[in-house]
Amino acid sequence: MLEQLKKQVLEANLALPEHNLVTFTWGNVSEIDRASGLMVIKPSGVKYSEMTEADMVVVEVETGRVVEGTKRPSSDTDTHRALYLAWPEAGGIVHTHSRHATIWAQAGRDIPAWGTTHADDFYGTIPCSRAMRDDEIIERYEWQTGQVIIETLRERQIDPLAIPAVLVNSHGPFAWGKSAQDAVHSAVVLEEVAYMALFSQQLTPQLPAINPALLDKHYLRKHGKDAWYGQKE
Amino acid sequence: MLEQLKKQVLEANLALPEHNLVTFTWGNVSEIDRASGLMVIKPSGVKYSEMTEADMVVVEVETGRVVEGTKRPSSDTDTHRALYLAWPEAGGIVHTHSRHATIWAQAGRDIPAWGTTHADDFYGTIPCSRAMRDDEIIERYEWQTGQVIIETLRERQIDPLAIPAVLVNSHGPFAWGKSAQDAVHSAVVLEEVAYMALFSQQLTPQLPAINPALLDKHYLRKHGKDAWYGQKE
Amino acid sequence: MLEQLKKQVLEANLALPEHNLVTFTWGNVSEIDRASGLMVIKPSGVKYSEMTEADMVVVEVETGRVVEGTKRPSSDTDTHRALYLAWPEAGGIVHTHSRHATIWAQAGRDIPAWGTTHADDFYGTIPCSRAMRDDEIIERYEWQTGQVIIETLRERQIDPLAIPAVLVNSHGPFAWGKSAQDAVHSAVVLEEVAYMALFSQQLTPQLPAINPALLDKHYLRKHGKDAWYGQKE
Amino acid sequence: MLEQLKKQVLEANLALPEHNLVTFTWGNVSEIDRASGLMVIKPSGVKYSEMTEADMVVVEVETGRVVEGTKRPSSDTDTHRALYLAWPEAGGIVHTHSRHATIWAQAGRDIPAWGTTHADDFYGTIPCSRAMRDDEIIERYEWQTGQVIIETLRERQIDPLAIPAVLVNSHGPFAWGKSAQDAVHSAVVLEEVAYMALFSQQLTPQLPAINPALLDKHYLRKHGKDAWYGQKE
Repeated sequence: MLEQLKKQVLEANLALPEHNLVTFTWGNVSEIDRASGLMVIKPSGVKYSEMTEADMVVVEVETGRVVEGTKRPSSDTDTHRALYLAWPEAGGIVHTHSRHATIWAQAGRDIPAWGTTHADDFYGTIPCSRAMRDDEIIERYEWQTGQVIIETLRERQIDPLAIPAVLVNSHGPFAWGKSAQDAVHSAVVLEEVAYMALFSQQLTPQLPAINPALLDKHYLRKHGKDAWYGQKE
Repeated sequence: MLEQLKKQVLEANLALPEHNLVTFTWGNVSEIDRASGLMVIKPSGVKYSEMTEADMVVVEVETGRVVEGTKRPSSDTDTHRALYLAWPEAGGIVHTHSRHATIWAQAGRDIPAWGTTHADDFYGTIPCSRAMRDDEIIERYEWQTGQVIIETLRERQIDPLAIPAVLVNSHGPFAWGKSAQDAVHSAVVLEEVAYMALFSQQLTPQLPAINPALLDKHYLRKHGKDAWYGQKE
Repeated sequence: MLEQLKKQVLEANLALPEHNLVTFTWGNVSEIDRASGLMVIKPSGVKYSEMTEADMVVVEVETGRVVEGTKRPSSDTDTHRALYLAWPEAGGIVHTHSRHATIWAQAGRDIPAWGTTHADDFYGTIPCSRAMRDDEIIERYEWQTGQVIIETLRERQIDPLAIPAVLVNSHGPFAWGKSAQDAVHSAVVLEEVAYMALFSQQLTPQLPAINPALLDKHYLRKHGKDAWYGQKE
Repeated sequence: MLEQLKKQVLEANLALPEHNLVTFTWGNVSEIDRASGLMVIKPSGVKYSEMTEADMVVVEVETGRVVEGTKRPSSDTDTHRALYLAWPEAGGIVHTHSRHATIWAQAGRDIPAWGTTHADDFYGTIPCSRAMRDDEIIERYEWQTGQVIIETLRERQIDPLAIPAVLVNSHGPFAWGKSAQDAVHSAVVLEEVAYMALFSQQLTPQLPAINPALLDKHYLRKHGKDAWYGQKE
């Protein structure tokens, strides 16, 4: 079942240690098959070096029921489900504790768009969510984490594919994209951008956001309907 | 004698350079066999790249007597002994000079729980010990280092397995766990957490500690009797 | 056509990930053949691990016309063209988003000459350009980026080969040299210097520039007509 | 001539990139043969990946005359000569631009002994030299660099083997030891210590120096005549 998708999800998970985004088994990637309403996700607590396609877990997104797989799915499965149900445009989701994105999440701060590296893939400020309430933490925590992410984008009127990441307050980043591979791309760029932003604001403490014209130019060069970066396909 | 334990202790020692926690021969790991009252520990000043199982030293914990091995045990052996004698629940101990944990130790500062990466493995603030007195430094220094670590946890009423590390003031971290491998896990997470905490407090100088409900949720998700992270064993 | 040059440009491009200057496909290197007025440049958005000599694109510098190659040239091609047309002494050009040079560019700050590592290859302050105006961003952006770089050096009366890099405001570094390889050298040193400068000024906030006599000594030791560093050729 | 010494000096030079202390050809190591008054030193500007024993240059320390070798010796040869002539106890010398030691040198600041990592190999504050005067820079610069290093230790009454490194103001570190290998050891520890000190003083800005009793204990544990670290030889 979904053998091609399992392969892609495994590869996307293995890309996390290759890009130095994870320690031990921290981090997980999923991708959804919209036709069947099923998602494939990493198993919980399995070493990257030993992980195989057969370890991938197939989960029904609507109910959370495990449809195939001998292992338990990632403990963050309900967060992934919540996002897929809220955003029809999301195809893949990543969670990591990558160092610098997590530093901003722990500090409870948004990452302003301070340069074209940011603008190339994030069309504005990357938001940090509000702190979760005790009741959200105590009951259905992972599901509620998803709801807080959704609320953050909704309240700031952000299109999920235009700014494909959130810093979950006191926790760390979730990132997404059209596919698992695209979501990993978002997570890698987020970490780069978080590193640079940390030190740019140390050099120039009251640094203003990038000129909106420059933000437009770089984002649309890569992502708009008239994008001209890369090769025609 | 204790061949399986020697193998495990060797592997745990070799995991230190793999996780970039040591330079040269700095760092040592031991594990205790509670049934016999013996511990296996790394020899002093031997290169990781040349270390073999036969180099491991077997030490009687109660007396410090070398029971087997042709090499001298780690110069920190008496600190390990002190901790094993004080804490029946400790199975493995690690000492390193890993960069960021050492930075906090040198600065004489505790590491507050500022995020879920911390909460996943440390159930609260990671304490920095008081400075050692001259008499403790001059006589039986390594043994007294152990006593100061024990005092630090006792005075703060910390369960050693709930917060499995201390920053020894002006020196560096000691970490522990149920086994040598588990102790290395603590040391790796400590270093991650120390890095992130350093820069989180630069971004938000008066950063409050994590919400206790969130600390509970993450710690107990991985460590409580109802833990649901990872695979059932 | 220009087979030897394609080989050199490919090698110079591959040197960027080897020196940890790029993530994904960010970054590009070109070299010009002054006799024919043609330049060879990296294709846009192709993975470094899959790039071959045949992927290199030959562009007429005067017109921007693609003369040979099946792929589209780097999206920054017009910036390279502008610099080659303005500076007859430039033989190779590099653009990256290397972390620390980009941090200074995002912060909108020049990198003062604070040590001999800087002085060995940059004969004074490395300038950060002024912010680009909206009209420059909206129309012919890449060409205008080149014009702003040229203006920056002209207004500060800088010889391009004496200070072979600029930080483009809110963006990142461009570096150059007598050849593609030499330009990569400039980009690597720039990144080293940017890292060190970031933290030197944290240690000593009002740090004055290097003694001009020391700047002269180091720069001329390597670059003057009486240079005595390295082997005679 | 001196074949064994050439081998050792080559190995010590190759240890620099292994420990991430150098970029390109920056950095050089020498060792002296006191019996003959000759030293072996790295050639100037040769790539580490292509360097062989035959490239090593034999120099008469008293005169600076090249006695054997087809290549030109390191441009810092006269600094090495000055130190060997002043300090009969020095057997090997290293110069690098390692990132964090250079950051302190550029900032013009001493590195205080802030922890046992420092105390294990440096018996007190690592000094930064005074800025060199114009006349010292203009005439016989490399020789005068050596004289300023010697003056720094003499004025502070430092035994060169007890604190085996200096930060040359606006430049970078020189380190030394009983042999080339020992000098590389000093350079590696210096870089570790410089990194940790940078961030320890950010966490605790008015950080006092380590307790002298602790400095004594750690330094003498490894270096005194009653040292008990490592294996008996």
